[in-house]
Amino acid sequence: MRAEHIEHGVDLAYQQAKKSYDEGGLPIGAVLMTEEGEVVARGHNMRVQEGSPILHGEMSCIRAAGRRTDWHTLTLFTTLSPCPMCSGTAVLHKVRRVVIAESENFQGREDWLLQAGIEVVKLRDARCIELMGRFIREKPQLWNEDIAVVEE
Amino acid sequence: MRAEHIEHGVDLAYQQAKKSYDEGGLPIGAVLMTEEGEVVARGHNMRVQEGSPILHGEMSCIRAAGRRTDWHTLTLFTTLSPCPMCSGTAVLHKVRRVVIAESENFQGREDWLLQAGIEVVKLRDARCIELMGRFIREKPQLWNEDIAVVEE
Repeated sequence: MRAEHIEHGVDLAYQQAKKSYDEGGLPIGAVLMTEEGEVVARGHNMRVQEGSPILHGEMSCIRAAGRRTDWHTLTLFTTLSPCPMCSGTAVLHKVRRVVIAESENFQGREDWLLQAGIEVVKLRDARCIELMGRFIREKPQLWNEDIAVVEE
Repeated sequence: MRAEHIEHGVDLAYQQAKKSYDEGGLPIGAVLMTEEGEVVARGHNMRVQEGSPILHGEMSCIRAAGRRTDWHTLTLFTTLSPCPMCSGTAVLHKVRRVVIAESENFQGREDWLLQAGIEVVKLRDARCIELMGRFIREKPQLWNEDIAVVEE
């Protein structure tokens, strides 16, 4: 995948995250792209918007991609390091590559991706870091309800 | 959790699987239950019914349970050993226990559950084994599109 495709994918994932933030939801976005840079699907976290505990950004994006058999050719972009649910879903579908725009606000299960033979590209996208950090400061309860859930 | 609650949970999960089979879908069902045996939610695979690649039985059930903070008190019943997506989702939500009615037709990521400190109960429910096996024989293409996906 060419560098310009990766840059484009991160841009689109950030736009999805921003859209969700503007809707009052969790600012995490995702994009699925072919090796040639064609956008297959996009999505963002819908926990607030649909009241759903399974619709993280990556899950919304994969839902939008529909039933298909070419997952192993696709790259999944996500604005935030993927949680156990989303990492497990990438492993299930055996996506080719996961591009992670930032992992400073949360560290997911990138180890599961690597163990499954999925290529992992880690970036430090300043826009994604800033937006996620702002949300966590503004709405800590919503953040704690989700991947940052605190054990008793 | 008392033995009668476990038996009841498996019964209900099987009924969900059978309902999906009768609808032409994948016969995998799931139930969420409190330690006292109260049924919180139920669901079945919706790949065919909703055309969704994320709605395995366990995911439909967790979606039906909605946003909540008591996951760590709940037991997830599933008719089939949970795939990477569903195992990852159980790890994300830190459910207390996963009861697996059968793992003969498919072996999922029970190791991820155990590593996350989730209690795992493995059964060999003859009804679930028979129904899943029948479906795999009858509709191998549909099965291969999902968790049994063949790598190139």
